[in-house]
Formats: sequence, structure tokens, C-alpha cells
Amino acid sequence: MKVITFGELMLRLAPEGYYRFTQVDKFGATFGGGEANVAVSLANYGIDVAFVSKIVANPIGDAAVNSLRRYGVDTSLITRGGDRLGIYYLEKGASQRPSKVVYDRAHSSIAEAKQEDFDWDKIFKDVDFFHFTGITPALGENVADITLRACQEAKKRNITISCDLNYRKKLWSKEQANKTMSELAEYIDVVIANEEDAADVFNIHSTASDVTKGELNKEGYIEVAQKLTEKFGFKKVAITLRESISANDNRWSAMLYTDGKAYFSRTYNMHIVDRVGGGDSFGGGLIYSLLMGFDPQKTIEFAVGASCLKHSIEGDYNLVSVEEVLSLIGGNASGRVQR
Amino acid sequence: MKVITFGELMLRLAPEGYYRFTQVDKFGATFGGGEANVAVSLANYGIDVAFVSKIVANPIGDAAVNSLRRYGVDTSLITRGGDRLGIYYLEKGASQRPSKVVYDRAHSSIAEAKQEDFDWDKIFKDVDFFHFTGITPALGENVADITLRACQEAKKRNITISCDLNYRKKLWSKEQANKTMSELAEYIDVVIANEEDAADVFNIHSTASDVTKGELNKEGYIEVAQKLTEKFGFKKVAITLRESISANDNRWSAMLYTDGKAYFSRTYNMHIVDRVGGGDSFGGGLIYSLLMGFDPQKTIEFAVGASCLKHSIEGDYNLVSVEEVLSLIGGNASGRVQR
Amino acid sequence: MKVITFGELMLRLAPEGYYRFTQVDKFGATFGGGEANVAVSLANYGIDVAFVSKIVANPIGDAAVNSLRRYGVDTSLITRGGDRLGIYYLEKGASQRPSKVVYDRAHSSIAEAKQEDFDWDKIFKDVDFFHFTGITPALGENVADITLRACQEAKKRNITISCDLNYRKKLWSKEQANKTMSELAEYIDVVIANEEDAADVFNIHSTASDVTKGELNKEGYIEVAQKLTEKFGFKKVAITLRESISANDNRWSAMLYTDGKAYFSRTYNMHIVDRVGGGDSFGGGLIYSLLMGFDPQKTIEFAVGASCLKHSIEGDYNLVSVEEVLSLIGGNASGRVQR
Amino acid sequence: MKVITFGELMLRLAPEGYYRFTQVDKFGATFGGGEANVAVSLANYGIDVAFVSKIVANPIGDAAVNSLRRYGVDTSLITRGGDRLGIYYLEKGASQRPSKVVYDRAHSSIAEAKQEDFDWDKIFKDVDFFHFTGITPALGENVADITLRACQEAKKRNITISCDLNYRKKLWSKEQANKTMSELAEYIDVVIANEEDAADVFNIHSTASDVTKGELNKEGYIEVAQKLTEKFGFKKVAITLRESISANDNRWSAMLYTDGKAYFSRTYNMHIVDRVGGGDSFGGGLIYSLLMGFDPQKTIEFAVGASCLKHSIEGDYNLVSVEEVLSLIGGNASGRVQR
Amino acid sequence: MKVITFGELMLRLAPEGYYRFTQVDKFGATFGGGEANVAVSLANYGIDVAFVSKIVANPIGDAAVNSLRRYGVDTSLITRGGDRLGIYYLEKGASQRPSKVVYDRAHSSIAEAKQEDFDWDKIFKDVDFFHFTGITPALGENVADITLRACQEAKKRNITISCDLNYRKKLWSKEQANKTMSELAEYIDVVIANEEDAADVFNIHSTASDVTKGELNKEGYIEVAQKLTEKFGFKKVAITLRESISANDNRWSAMLYTDGKAYFSRTYNMHIVDRVGGGDSFGGGLIYSLLMGFDPQKTIEFAVGASCLKHSIEGDYNLVSVEEVLSLIGGNASGRVQR
Amino acid sequence: MKVITFGELMLRLAPEGYYRFTQVDKFGATFGGGEANVAVSLANYGIDVAFVSKIVANPIGDAAVNSLRRYGVDTSLITRGGDRLGIYYLEKGASQRPSKVVYDRAHSSIAEAKQEDFDWDKIFKDVDFFHFTGITPALGENVADITLRACQEAKKRNITISCDLNYRKKLWSKEQANKTMSELAEYIDVVIANEEDAADVFNIHSTASDVTKGELNKEGYIEVAQKLTEKFGFKKVAITLRESISANDNRWSAMLYTDGKAYFSRTYNMHIVDRVGGGDSFGGGLIYSLLMGFDPQKTIEFAVGASCLKHSIEGDYNLVSVEEVLSLIGGNASGRVQR
Repeated sequence: MKVITFGELMLRLAPEGYYRFTQVDKFGATFGGGEANVAVSLANYGIDVAFVSKIVANPIGDAAVNSLRRYGVDTSLITRGGDRLGIYYLEKGASQRPSKVVYDRAHSSIAEAKQEDFDWDKIFKDVDFFHFTGITPALGENVADITLRACQEAKKRNITISCDLNYRKKLWSKEQANKTMSELAEYIDVVIANEEDAADVFNIHSTASDVTKGELNKEGYIEVAQKLTEKFGFKKVAITLRESISANDNRWSAMLYTDGKAYFSRTYNMHIVDRVGGGDSFGGGLIYSLLMGFDPQKTIEFAVGASCLKHSIEGDYNLVSVEEVLSLIGGNASGRVQR
Repeated sequence: MKVITFGELMLRLAPEGYYRFTQVDKFGATFGGGEANVAVSLANYGIDVAFVSKIVANPIGDAAVNSLRRYGVDTSLITRGGDRLGIYYLEKGASQRPSKVVYDRAHSSIAEAKQEDFDWDKIFKDVDFFHFTGITPALGENVADITLRACQEAKKRNITISCDLNYRKKLWSKEQANKTMSELAEYIDVVIANEEDAADVFNIHSTASDVTKGELNKEGYIEVAQKLTEKFGFKKVAITLRESISANDNRWSAMLYTDGKAYFSRTYNMHIVDRVGGGDSFGGGLIYSLLMGFDPQKTIEFAVGASCLKHSIEGDYNLVSVEEVLSLIGGNASGRVQR
Repeated sequence: MKVITFGELMLRLAPEGYYRFTQVDKFGATFGGGEANVAVSLANYGIDVAFVSKIVANPIGDAAVNSLRRYGVDTSLITRGGDRLGIYYLEKGASQRPSKVVYDRAHSSIAEAKQEDFDWDKIFKDVDFFHFTGITPALGENVADITLRACQEAKKRNITISCDLNYRKKLWSKEQANKTMSELAEYIDVVIANEEDAADVFNIHSTASDVTKGELNKEGYIEVAQKLTEKFGFKKVAITLRESISANDNRWSAMLYTDGKAYFSRTYNMHIVDRVGGGDSFGGGLIYSLLMGFDPQKTIEFAVGASCLKHSIEGDYNLVSVEEVLSLIGGNASGRVQR
Repeated sequence: MKVITFGELMLRLAPEGYYRFTQVDKFGATFGGGEANVAVSLANYGIDVAFVSKIVANPIGDAAVNSLRRYGVDTSLITRGGDRLGIYYLEKGASQRPSKVVYDRAHSSIAEAKQEDFDWDKIFKDVDFFHFTGITPALGENVADITLRACQEAKKRNITISCDLNYRKKLWSKEQANKTMSELAEYIDVVIANEEDAADVFNIHSTASDVTKGELNKEGYIEVAQKLTEKFGFKKVAITLRESISANDNRWSAMLYTDGKAYFSRTYNMHIVDRVGGGDSFGGGLIYSLLMGFDPQKTIEFAVGASCLKHSIEGDYNLVSVEEVLSLIGGNASGRVQR
Repeated sequence: MKVITFGELMLRLAPEGYYRFTQVDKFGATFGGGEANVAVSLANYGIDVAFVSKIVANPIGDAAVNSLRRYGVDTSLITRGGDRLGIYYLEKGASQRPSKVVYDRAHSSIAEAKQEDFDWDKIFKDVDFFHFTGITPALGENVADITLRACQEAKKRNITISCDLNYRKKLWSKEQANKTMSELAEYIDVVIANEEDAADVFNIHSTASDVTKGELNKEGYIEVAQKLTEKFGFKKVAITLRESISANDNRWSAMLYTDGKAYFSRTYNMHIVDRVGGGDSFGGGLIYSLLMGFDPQKTIEFAVGASCLKHSIEGDYNLVSVEEVLSLIGGNASGRVQR
Repeated sequence: MKVITFGELMLRLAPEGYYRFTQVDKFGATFGGGEANVAVSLANYGIDVAFVSKIVANPIGDAAVNSLRRYGVDTSLITRGGDRLGIYYLEKGASQRPSKVVYDRAHSSIAEAKQEDFDWDKIFKDVDFFHFTGITPALGENVADITLRACQEAKKRNITISCDLNYRKKLWSKEQANKTMSELAEYIDVVIANEEDAADVFNIHSTASDVTKGELNKEGYIEVAQKLTEKFGFKKVAITLRESISANDNRWSAMLYTDGKAYFSRTYNMHIVDRVGGGDSFGGGLIYSLLMGFDPQKTIEFAVGASCLKHSIEGDYNLVSVEEVLSLIGGNASGRVQR
């Protein structure tokens, strides 16, 4: 079984702890990005996974590539070149103060990549699963075109395709997103979203639920999943449900909708260490479950359990093993010391 | 609009995280002090504010001055000279273990300052607002006299005067405080206190409420504010209400009493990053609101929202913008990531 | 009054904060071990206490010895020699992710010590109290024999003996533990355990209570204490009661059973800084209370208060004073800043 | 006396100590840039100096501005806006391994600034001295045009203009540099260069001296200065002379050519802490000397002494006082402790 | 071209900077070991290289494996299992104070490995070069036997074998070393040593040169190489020549003896950042040169240049590229900033 | 053999590495002071040594005491009480930039101590050697009186007395020093000084040698020692000879004058890690040699070797063993790694 994820890998610059940007003279310098995060998740689960992107050929790019290699992701398919590595600055929030992300990702190598930078014959050789997020086509029309080409090439080879909608309003308008993502949607088998994404990207709304209030509306989520399925023919729709009590405390669960039925996971009360990459770790857990052929309930429990654990881990990457996720979803959520 | 704050700026030496004094071989070295903290708050809100003090003319004093300059406070009115910079050592508490402050502030330059160190004609040129705290006159009789002189000079120029009572039992007795503060009270327009301060300094008590139990008694606070107003003729009395669940978790709200009416803010359940400077950030928010002419309810909400955010920030200084405070008091308290 | 504790002191290597082992390039390097932790507790309470062990004669061993000396533990009775200092790697858990301990303690100097390494005449000169844990005899048959000899020598001199059962499944089987500990039990006056220990070591079970669910069963604990007392003739049985909400939040209390009566402490809701050494700090508090002759209720309150505070402190050692514990058990649990 | 410096301020991201880019997970995050560095030098000497640039209006830009404000540079004339803050990554070399700079400065706010971003009437009010470097016009034709405009406006007001040639081959070709700098040269009173700059920018060569061999050729430098003076009519030409023994050890001196005479400074054997900003600190010292009206020999000694000290200081900014420079050039170079 | 290196990978625990073991509460935690260091060198030069060993299957072992994977070493042939990862503690010396290494490597997984842990058919598939050091057989008779087996299997497949003698007196006696290494010598094509190694392991002495005095005796080295060649039939003998001025300053050069002729490299005056791994980086450079078919003079220059650069890099691993080594040996040793 | 040292222990606050005071937001927080430094030296050599002082009874004072206890100094004779712990801020110099010390030691507990704070009967029980420095009597007339009393009490008991002159111009004038030290001199057996001290304190000058030029004048030192001996009847005079090349590089040697003869040590070229405490470590080595009865040449070599090593160690305390010093003075100064 081999998986390809395709997207942008960025340098993440973040003050330590809860310091604000203007207080510090050091930034934690790690790496992350939606599809790279999924790749690391899968590598940690023992899956053969390669990350595909274009990354600048300088020592900063080397460090980015090394960060994936370190956790076992195949980086041999990455194209090296272009001008720069995209950056995002992250300030961790606390209590009522929200986390803050400042993007400096324009003109990155992947954002200015061209069709000829990627040899899909080589990339998709013996591949079973292809994953990308809505961020990738949002990087520019050129990248949207490359993504479309990737989907077409994958589909030709009967590769299952998953996409996390991940709408980013700073990258494109809802109209642009709708147009591009609707075109890509026809290739997608498994879609991952939160309720906002569905509304922002596909203009699909449920009747109730206001995320800023932290209330859940199960029926609304089922409704959204049904509409998405009807409109685009997705085989599976997974929706993550985050209730934000504060920057430190969130409730976390999700729903998998497949074959006309909805499966809700248990809900975790999480005390957050690092929230960024939480959605990606859900994607990683979901893809793993699908590759393993877990039943729908176990699939959604594994994906939610995996991402619950991610919230306890610093950095974008989810560094947990299959055993750790299984232990959690098996009921061991008390956090007792393991000796 | 120009504001002057007057008081002591100290070096704050604190072990990182939750380490105890006796465990570490490094101290975080930042700066803070009641009136300096208010000045930084105001500078962050875009107000033209100068901090007035006497600070030792050596590199440690330079660093103290730079810490204010960095955040936009005018430091050109600070007198340089004297023997030393006052110090406070801070050990952050956790759970049932309280935070601990060890003072080493005696003999600081400001504590040994003289009347001639300050040229109030120059300092109060074009000034609208003057702020100090009860800590300043407590530094010594000389400083109490200087403070009295400052109040008289301010009053002559129709400058509004605010004072945060901030009773410190290690600096003076209740009797000393009562005598000195009663004399200063006649110049003060806006007084900031917590219930204990009013009792400690002015021997004014409410009927109920035991702070160590973390219970609130709204009627009691109104009663205290009424008595203060009656006795000293304050135009506004602001009382902060802290309920301490543990060193990590506090509830936080406040009351503004003005024109015979009491306005209570909403209450925040705070997960604390750094509690020191919490009261000062309230003062900063209150003064800003008064300068902006906010109505009483918005005034108290802004002041409490500002200080709520301070509790999520490391160090004495409150590094938040007007926009961030307005967003919080506008209802956005869920701590969701801002991208 | 003089106390001896006997056991292993290890190097503790731990990533900072909540980082995982595989993320970091630095380990916090401190020292700890059940009986050494108790010794530090007692030294902080002003008790004359010596730690007895065998520690490698190289700079790493020197650093281990220094760590005790620093906090006032008498280290002059430690035998220096052997091959290595045992190590334990600690990864702090958060939320649903449990803390993880990886042991690398085999072949340590104490694990390979011999009878002739210890001169009990010298060690027990003028000693009143002797403490060890179930970990020490589990280090090997040689160490079990040395421990037996120590108990015999102590008994000869009318020294009170306490033992914290502390069952470690990675060190020995339940059968081995039962055999060895049963033999040692006849010398023990005060036994400390949690419900699991009693079951694991002595096969003594209560009727109800499932620790993984975080529920308490007071009757069950009394039952266990009674059975232990009946079987081994312990003078006092202390059982700690931990309810694990998550890796960050625990509830903590304990019971002292003596003279046929059970005394339960109040329960603390703890926000955890460092959970390791929590049980040892209970032992330290208990021994202090016994040495001071506190009544049973104050004894158990002091022991639980002391260990509650330990959970707010980084590292194995409990660095609190008698005054701090008394303040907490006197009702001051709100964590308000002490100026 | 007031000075304006105009150019780019960048975020400097650098591994600590001598670590390579690919080894670390933290970057020191400070700020620097040729003209900003000169401004900080001057502020430390007590000169009223403002830095002019365009800086992005986000918290990263705020931190950049604060870094200047902290050291007393007037930042009120900075235009806020645009897309991003330029970055340079710095890896400090050691012994035979050279320091490495990776630029990521394209598309910064200043690189995409427009004429209307700067109000020269306001900027040059009461100004005596204007400084920029050859890096600024190299940022793009738009910035070259703005720089030309600045020179014209300065000249109109009889403001003395200095320029450090600072040729950067990654920013423009020698041909572009020659064309643009020749046009600007007619406005420049004081030019600062090293031998390579004169060759690279103006195609002016001396007969001997090969910098990679670390040999000096005094006659050659005089020759270059003469030719520059003849060709462009500069009033003063200052040439820095660096002999690189290794990344840790450099020899450092300079020559000032004025009124047809050359003045050489003493030479310092420097053990380097941070070499970046070394040339800028020379510029800062030179401008200070000119403002003070030092004689030519003292001028060049002050500039070289100031930059010698800079090499012992971390970061781009030269944080030394006039007294420290005077002490050094007065002969106190033994590094004895000052108590 | 594929290379295998075989040996032990250890956890390296080192105080930061020049701190002593007993001063710190943090250890830098990186990984290293003779053959692993060579593997990383080769991976950085773009060579396909796998490291073979047995490493404990716990998170500490995972981190060790990741450290190689990060820099591109193939780790898929490592056997996972056994009891522990070997450790070495390193205290960096300065000036007259020597660096200090404390080993805690007994009972590591590789030291207790068995023949059946390694499948040489799989390991040596398509391999051209095999490298080990004298440390590996010194780990125990079992490991000496495995190493012998590896040499036999390699020889069968016409794989070139290199060995760095690396005598460690704490691991075995000269007699044991002589016996075992003499047996292995018959398989070795390329031997790397310093003068002491040849004397310690093979009892081969030159006439002059006392390493503690820092004097070189070129004739003596040639003599040693001749004797080694005569006795064991090595094809190439490389001898490194370290002159230790102080812990901070060393002179460094080497000799390659091949086909009856000796080739001496230039000598570098190195200001040392981290001396550990210096010899291994020489081995890495030598093997690279041999694989590339460089002529003898370029071979020894590359190997010495590579290891010269290593001395400027923190950690065991030599993180330099072919381009950087070529630039140095091409004459660019002045350490000038590369922009 | 038991030694008492008497003086002040201060908190040392120092930026890491070569950062300036105004750059950092953390200070290394260690402890030091002339006589405490000597005590730690002696404890490391295995001597039974107690430090006597008055130290404030708060957690900062606890940490100071612990710092001595950690390295084996007996702290049981320290009086706890008073107002504060003295502080010195240290900025490490580099190259031509000198280290800078800012004192904040006034009003410390020892500086305000009284005769009754010290029970010399108890302190001097079974003591052989008493050491203090000229800093102690300089703290104030009260402390000078206490020091005189200590000398008288010591002399009564035939305790050998040593004193390091250590003139500090910020503490007293040359006149004050002369008066007080001359009175104390009659009790002193062994005096330690540098040439400046003798001139500053006793107005004793040699004919030549200018320390700022880094030249030595052996005859001058002998002359000074002779004059000191003649005037005060010292049994031994030790003079340290520092030649300061730069803040990084010093030459270091010393002379012992006894029984009318001068013994010069070898000279070390030191690359400095931390120069503070260099003189104290000389005193520690000298006292150790005297206690051991080394001959004069070995005495001065041991003292100089010990202090040479101190310059390679961070912090005030000299953390070296007898073996390390003996190895160095035995000729092993090449800094080769010890495995």
C-alpha cells in the first residue's frame, strides 16, 4: 500500500510557550503544512507514504525535507527549485486570547510551480491513495491546474482520492474556491470538512449550529453530508466537530457519513498543547483506517482518537503510533503514567 | 491627549515556567511596576504616554528604560541617577501552590529620589491625565511628598488624576497608608481598588464576601464604592473582583461606580498564563476608556476585557491592542485560531 | 531524630514541557528515585536524613550525589563504586496522552551491590527511622538480601521501619514480589500503598473500585487496610487514592488506617505540573508527621497536602517547606499570590 | 543635529552559536539591515536619528519597528504597509567554515514601495545628514527611483549625504549597479566602500592586493580613493580593510581619504563574536565623527574602533557607547575586566 | 554505488558549551558513533549508504534511528531489539582543560547482538563498500565474531573493506585488540589510523614523534604505513596527524600511503567547535574520494578538508557538502561570509 | 584539617555568552564571592571547609546557600537574616571589549552584620586555617571590625590566616584600605596579591612593569614581595601575574615568595571561558598546597595550574579536582580528549 500527499510544506516560526510575537528574540523553527502533516501521520502508522511538492534548493529547503525524512516520509519525489520556502508565523493563544497565524507564503516554490515540475507517471507508480487539501489549489491558478492534472492522473490509475476542504479566506474568495473545488470534486472519493468549509466552499449550509457558541447540532451535520454526497457523489464524507471553550480547552468529535449512514465518534474534552495540525491528524487517521479497512465506527473513532492525541503534541506533525491511538479509543483516556 | 504615569520600574527576576527559586540557574529578566505597566498598556492602545521616575544610570537601568521605549512609551522625562534599580523576584505558582513575590526594592533610585529630581512644569506640559498607584507614596516619606507635589501640580493644571490603591503591607502599615492616602485622596478623581485595598487603606468595609473563599458579594462592593465616594468625593470608583479557584484558574470581573450607579462587567473564567500586572492592565483599560469617552458599561467591559487578556500574557506588561480587547468584549471569547 | 532512606538514585532524562522523546535534542537532566525523593522531602522539613545507596564513582555519579547535597540530604553514607548510574527517561503526558517512562536501570551500581558495600553499624548509628520502597528489593536478589539485612539490623536497634510497596511490573513478577515482600513485611511498621500495590504484591483485593474509571470506593480501601494489618501486623497502613481525570488533572486524597480506625484526608483537584514523585512526597509527609507525633487526621492531611503541592513542582524532588504544607492544609488552597 | 537613514530592515533568522541550518529547531530572531544598523549606532551615540522605510503592518513588522525603538531610533517616519518583511537567514561560520547568508527578501514592503509612500518634506525637516547604502537602490528600479528622489530632496536642503556602496551580487549585476550608482554618485558627499565594492560597482581597480589572500596594499587603496574622488567628486572616501584569517579571526583597519590625503587607522586583531553589521558599524562611527567634527585621524580611528567593538557583539546592531569607543582608541584594548 | 557501515550508534549526552557535568540540569541529546558518523558523511555527499546495527525497540532507539534518517542514511537494515541504547557522556574541554568522555555503553543491544540478528545476504545486496571501526569488534567476542563474519561475507562478494583502527583502551586490552584485529586485517583493504592506533593495536612503532608534544615526524608515519602494509597487505593506509595545541586549537593533516608512496595533505590550523567525530569525518571523506576515484593527493586533501570542516560543527555528524569541501581544498580557507 | 573562609556570597546575574546587558531577557543566575569561591575550590579538593557569612533568610538566600552545599561546602555556620543578598551583574567581554561588572551589593545582610551575628568559639572549633579577602573589611566599618575580631580569635587559636588583598576601588578609597588592611596585616600569615593590589592598598610599588601593556617584570614582583614581607612580616607572599592580550586571551603565571626566595610558576596561554573567580581559584590552590605541605615550587605550580583551569570553567566556582590540577602541572596541557 502506498500513499501520495501533495501540497505545500512551510517553515513554521513560533514563539515558545504563550509569548507574543513582539516579546521574543527566538522563534521555534519547525515545519508543517496540511498534506505534509498527513504524510507524517501515515509514516508513523507504518504506511509507505511519499510527500510531493516543490521545495527551494537551499539549506532552509534542506531542513524542511529533512524534517519529513526524519519521521520516515519518502521525500525522493519532491522537486527541488524555485525561490523560497513559504513561512507561517504562529503565536499560540491562551484562555480567551486566540492563537494567531501570520502567513508569508506568497511566491513559494510550490506556489510558482509548473506542470512540468511533476512527473505523475513516476509519482503515481504503484500508488493506492492520493491526498490533498483545498489549500493546494488555492495557492494559484497554476497550482490549481497541477492539482487537477494530479487528480486526473490518479483517477486514470484507480487511485482513491481524498481531499480536506480546508478553506482559507486569505488565499482565495469563496467564489474562486467554489469554482475550482467543484471541478476537482468529481475526482474526489473521500471528502473531509468542517461545517464552515462546506458552507464557505460549496455554499452548503445546515439549518442550525453556531460554531462561535460551541454548540453542536448533529442533525445539521448529517444534512450537510447528505447534500455534499448528493451534489458531488462523494463516497465518504467526514466532518470534524470542534467546540471551542477557550484557546486551552476544546471539545472534539467527528462524524463519518458513508453509504447513507452517519457514524458519530465519542467526544473528547481536550486540554490543548498545540492545536495546529489537528484537522490534518484527523485526515491521517481517517486515511489509515480506510487503508486498513476498519468498519465505519472504528474508522471515525480512530480518526478522532488520533487527532485528539495530536492536540497534546507540539508542532504540526502528529507523532503517535497506531498502538497509542488504539489504546485511547479502547477506553484508556485517563492519562495515567505508563511505566 | 497625553498621559503621565509616575512610579517605580523594577527588574523582575523569575524562574521559567513553574520552577521554584531554588531549582534554577537562570532567571527571566524583564521589567515591571504598577505605573509603568499602565503606561505600556496605553502606548499599545496608541495613546501618547510618558513614564516618569528616577532610574539608575547604569546598563541595568538602560535595559529598564529600553523595555518601555520598545513598546512606545516616552521615556524622555525619566530622571537618571541614584544607586540601584529595585528588584522583585517572582516564582509562578501552580494549582494549590501560590505564586511568591520576594521584594528587594529598598534603596532604589526612585525610593531615594528628591523633589528637585522632577520638573513638573516640563513633565505636565500639555498633559491631560495623571496616574499613580498607592505603591509610590509607600516607597518612603520623600516619595510620598513628591507624589503629593505631583498631585498638586496636576490639579493646578486641571489634569485628571487616577490612583490604584494597591496596598502593600510590606511597604507600610495600614495607619501610614491611611494617613498618606487620605491626604492624596482629595486630588484623586478616579480611584481603582479591590475590596481589600479599601479596607486596608481607608478602613472601609463591606458587610459580606470573604475573598479567600472565592465568593462575590455585589452589594458589598457597591456599598464600599458608595462609602469611598462619600468620604473622598471621587468621581469614579472602580473595583476589581478576583475569585481565585487556584493559582491556574481565576474568575475575573469588575464594577464601575459613577454618578451614583454601579456597572458590573461580565465575568471571565481565566486559565492563567501570568497573573502579575493583572490589576495594572485593568487600570490601563479603564484610563483608555475614560480618554475615549466610552459610556460606563463599555468602560468597565473594556477595562475587564483588557485585563482578562493580560492574564494570558507573560510578563508585567499588557501587550494587547484596542482591536483585540474590542473583539473579546464583543463576544469572541472562544479562543479560536485567527488566520 | 535521624532518618535513613535506602534505595536507588537515577538520572532522569526528560524532554522539556510536553515534547515527545523523538522531537527534541535536549533532555532535562535531573535525578530521582523513590527513597531519595523521600530523603529530600524530609531534608526540606528540617529533618536530619541520610540517603544510603551505591553510586558510580564518575562525574555523573558526582552530579547525582550533589543533587541531594544541594537540598541538605546527608550523602556521607553513600558507597561510591560500581559500573553505572541507572537512568529513566520521562516523557510528560498531556490531556489524553499518558506520561511515558522508559527504564534503563539494569546493571546500575546499586543493582549490583553486595552485602559488604554497606556497614549497617555505621549507617544506623543514632537512627530513629528507616524507609525503603518495594522497588529496592526488586532490583535483584542481591539487593533483596541487602534490604532484608537492613531491616534486621534496623529492627535490632528498635528503628521504626516504613515501606512504600511501589510495585513495578517491569522489575519483577507478582509472585517474586509476593515472596520477597512477605518476608520483609514482618519487619515493617508502616506500610504505604495504593490499592493496586496491595493487590499486585500481596494479592489482597477490595470488593469494588476500578482505578481506570477514576471512581473511589472508601469501604474497599478500609477493607484492604484491615486485611493487610491482619495478615502482616502493620502498625499503620496508608493508602493513596488517585483519580485520574486526564494527564493534566487528577484528584488526590489518601487514607490512614491505624489502631483499627480509618482517617480520610480532604481531596484536592490538582492541575498537574509534574506527577512523578507524587507518591514519594506522600511518604515524606507521612514520615514527617509520624516523627512529629501528629494525630492521625493531621498526619494524613499533612501527607496529602505535601504531595498535593509536589504535583505543582517540576522534578522528582518535593521542594516545599513545613510552613507551605501547613498553610495549604489550614485551608489556603486558592493559590493567591503571596507578596 | 538630526540624521535620516533610509533602507530595508529585515528579520534575521540564525541558529544559535555555530550550529548549521539543518541542525536546529530554533532560530534567533532579531532584526537588521545596513541603514537600520547605522541608525542604531547613531542612537547609541546620542544622536537624534530616524530610520525611514516601508514595513509591513503586522505583528512581525511591529517587532521589527520595536527593535529600533528599543535602542532609541525614531521610527515615527516609517511607512507601514505592503506584503511582507524581508528575511535573511544567517549561519555563523567557524574556523575554515565560512558564515552563510540565505536571502529571502524579494517582495518585501520596501522592495515594492512607491514614490508616494514617502513624504520627503516631512522626513527631511530639520535634517543635517542623510545616509543610505548601495543595497537600497538594488532592491528594484522603483526603489532606485525613490532613492534618487531622496538624494535630490536632500541636496535641495543642503543635507550631507553618505553612501556605503555595499555591492550585493545577488541583487543586481555589476552593470546595473554601475549605471544606477553612477547617477546617485553625484549627490553623494561621503562614500564608504571596500576595495571590492569600488571594483564591482564603479569598475575602479587598484594595482595590487588580493583579498582572498588576506594581504593589504596601502598604495592600492589610496589609488582607488583618488580615482573615486576624481571621477565623482566625493568629499571623503572611506575604505575598510578586512584581512580574513579565518571565520573566527580577522584583522581590521580602514583608510579615510579627504582633501587629497589618506589617513590610515591602527589595525585590530579581532576574535569575532558576530561579523555581520561590521561594515555598518564603521559607517555609524564615521558619520558620528563627521557630525562631531573630529579631525581626519580621529575620525578614522573612531570609525574603526567602533566597528572593531561591533565584531564582539551579537546581532546586526552595534550596541556600544561613545565612551567605550573612545576608551578603545585611547589605547585600552587589553580587554581587562571593568569593575 | 552503495556503502554499508556497521557498528554502534549511541546517545550522546553533553552539557551545552563549556559547562562541566556537575554544573548543568540539561544535556544536549544527540547521537553518534564511529560508523554511523561515516554513514552520515557519505549521505551528505550524495552516496547511497545504509547503517547496520542492532538498536533497542523503544522511543529512545527510535530517536537514534530518526537522527540518521533525517540526514538521508538508509536505516531499513537496522535490527531492532535488545535491552538498551549505549550512551556516552561528553564534556567539552577548553584551553588547557581536556574534553572528557564517560562511557555507559555496556549491555547495549549491539554489544549483546547475535549472529542471527544480521542477514548478510540481504545487507550486502548490490553493495560496493563496507566500513567498520576497531570499536565494533571491541564490544565483545560475540560482536567480534559477527564482524569477522561480515568481513568474510563482504570479501566473498568482492566488496572493498575499510577499517578505522580506533583503539579504545576502556573496551579491550592491547593483547585482545592485537589478536582480534590481526585476524580481521586480512580482509581489510583500506586501513585508517593514527600513530597511536598502530602502536596500540599492532605494536608497530615509528622511531620518533611524541604526540603529547604536538610535533610531527613525517618519516615516522611513512615508516608505520610501510610496516602495516608489509605485515597485512593493506592496499591503502591513511594516517591522521593531530597536533594538539590546546582543547581549542589543533593542527590537522594526514597522510595517504598507497602503492609504496606517501601523500601528505596541507595542514589546517583549526579553532575547534566540536572535536568528536573528527576522525570519522576523515574516514567519510576518504571513502568518498575512493568511490569517486580521486587521485591520491586529491583523496587525502578531500579527506582532510572534510574533517577540518567537521571540527567547526557541533555534534558527531559531519554536515558538509561535497561543494563545501572542494571549496576549502581549492584554497578558500579564509572563512569569509558567503552571501 | 578544617578551613574557614569568611566573606560575602552574592547572586551573579549574567547574560549568556557574549550578549550585552541591554540585549537579553534572561540572566544566568549563579552565586559567587571571593571567599565562597575559595571554599568551593577546597571542598572540591576534599578539604573540610565551612563558609561563614550572613545571608538573608528568604528563598534567594536559600538558593545561595544551596549552591555551596551542592559542592560540599559546610554551610551550617552561616547566620541567616538581614535584608538582602548582594548582587553583581556580569557582562562577559570578548576580543577588545572588556568584561563589565555592575555591583548592587550595598545593604546586603553581611554588609550590615553585627559582631553578635558570629560566635567565633563555635566557628573556629578545631579549625586550622582561616581565609578572607580585602573585600570583606571593605564592606563597611562594622564588617572591618568583625574581620578584625575574627583575626584576633583565629590568632588566639594558632590558626593560620591568609588574605587576598583584592582591592576594590568602588568599595573604599586607598586611604581607607591602607588604614584597615595595615591593622589586619599583623595577623596575616599568607598574603595574596597582584602588583596593583600592593600599590593600591599598601602604597608599595615596584620599579617597572605596566599592566595595561601586558609586560612582566619579574624583578619588580620580587621587590614588592620583599617590601611587603619587611613591612608586615608575612610568612608567604603570593603574587599573580596576568598579561591581558584581549578579553579572550590572557597569559597567566604567579610567584611565591617565602623564606627570602622567589618561586615563579610556568606561564599558561589561556583561551578564556570565564575569567571571574580566577584569582580566587589561585587562592584555593595555594591554601590546598599549604595544607598538603607541598614544597614552594609545587605550591605555586599547583595554585597557578588550578587557576589556569578555572579560566576554562563557567561561573565563579572552580570545579576541578586535585587529579586534574596535578595532570596539568605534570605537563598534560594539550587539551587532548580523555576517554
